[in-house]
Amino acid sequence: MAIRLYELKGAGECRFSPYCWRTRLALAHKGLEAELIPVRFTDKDIIAFSGQSRVPVLVDGETTVSDSWTIACYLEDTYADRPSLFGGDGGRSVSRILNAWMDKTQNPLIVRMIVLDIHNGIEEVDHDYFRTSREQRFGVALEDVQADRAERVENFRAGLEFLRDILAEQPFLSGATPAYADYIVFSAFQWARCMSRFELLMADDPLHQWRDRMLDLFDGLAAKAAIAAG
Amino acid sequence: MAIRLYELKGAGECRFSPYCWRTRLALAHKGLEAELIPVRFTDKDIIAFSGQSRVPVLVDGETTVSDSWTIACYLEDTYADRPSLFGGDGGRSVSRILNAWMDKTQNPLIVRMIVLDIHNGIEEVDHDYFRTSREQRFGVALEDVQADRAERVENFRAGLEFLRDILAEQPFLSGATPAYADYIVFSAFQWARCMSRFELLMADDPLHQWRDRMLDLFDGLAAKAAIAAG
Repeated sequence: MAIRLYELKGAGECRFSPYCWRTRLALAHKGLEAELIPVRFTDKDIIAFSGQSRVPVLVDGETTVSDSWTIACYLEDTYADRPSLFGGDGGRSVSRILNAWMDKTQNPLIVRMIVLDIHNGIEEVDHDYFRTSREQRFGVALEDVQADRAERVENFRAGLEFLRDILAEQPFLSGATPAYADYIVFSAFQWARCMSRFELLMADDPLHQWRDRMLDLFDGLAAKAAIAAG
Repeated sequence: MAIRLYELKGAGECRFSPYCWRTRLALAHKGLEAELIPVRFTDKDIIAFSGQSRVPVLVDGETTVSDSWTIACYLEDTYADRPSLFGGDGGRSVSRILNAWMDKTQNPLIVRMIVLDIHNGIEEVDHDYFRTSREQRFGVALEDVQADRAERVENFRAGLEFLRDILAEQPFLSGATPAYADYIVFSAFQWARCMSRFELLMADDPLHQWRDRMLDLFDGLAAKAAIAAG
């Protein structure tokens, strides 16, 4: 039975969730095909069978796994004979730290720069849910959340200087070839790219060039993704 | 021939450099003894043989290695049959990212909270050099750099929330047992602890409890370290 992946859906064919992108890239890294099942924000009944309400949800035969990190570990363990996502137990441990860093410190910075664009890139049926839940979280209108992004992005870029140090010596964050650490970070840029025209990275930034290399992986998997950015 | 480690010296027996502590802990992890050779800021002639001017410098037989990251890799490769610092190639790759994150984003936050205390904890012969070079870097008097640390520390603590997520599930950042990822982060706290009474972590912080576990490792290697904090 084919693997099924439930992933967040924007307008048209757009699939933008950074957490779902981590799983998409992990599947590609393992050389695994999956049937992709779109889920709207207000469509969560579809994944109720998983016992929780967030995508990605992966179904592999009898097994259902949610949470992108848990899915990555599941794929690594279940398909151990395929290319490794972590490069060993130590890689898994420290990738988990990077994963938590991204979730807690960087994705929150990014969402503040693109949240109105995300709103505009999802289906109309999701608009009310998205605006209400996010305005409650931020305490101001979506328009106001991203209003000062031109200044915010400077700090965001400066905070990534340590990644440029790594890329000064090797093409991928993980070394000569990409691994899950790259997917963790890249998926946030893919999220922004799918939903916003706001440039998180300057064209001459080594991180921009790394992002281009990531877009090209797996026969342009991320590069070919549908863009909702209006 | 015994391994020799050249490390930065403060007043009395105090050895406080976070980079030297990474190496001290890496040596202990590998079960290696080393002769410790103190180096003052103004004493750098002692390590001129290494072809550069920064500690730590490790000398192992005919081999001289400088830079804490390069030393960790050297120890991992040379003493491969001893407990691993990285847990495989993936662990090494991602630990390097964490290492760069610490150096570029966290140690600069910490130094701004303890730089005057560091000045007061080094030997008098180093005072002029230290004050002049650091005041040039910060553009203000050392007294002013750390003046607003009571506010700064709140942001610093908040920025480490993702590490608490990791420690909610396991005793060490690396998992059930400590590894180099732990030493990277801990060494910064050890730096502050040796030189300052300013509390970077609240007593009820899970990171504080992790720090206590780190202090106890290797028969209390870090706990027994001399404190210059006045």
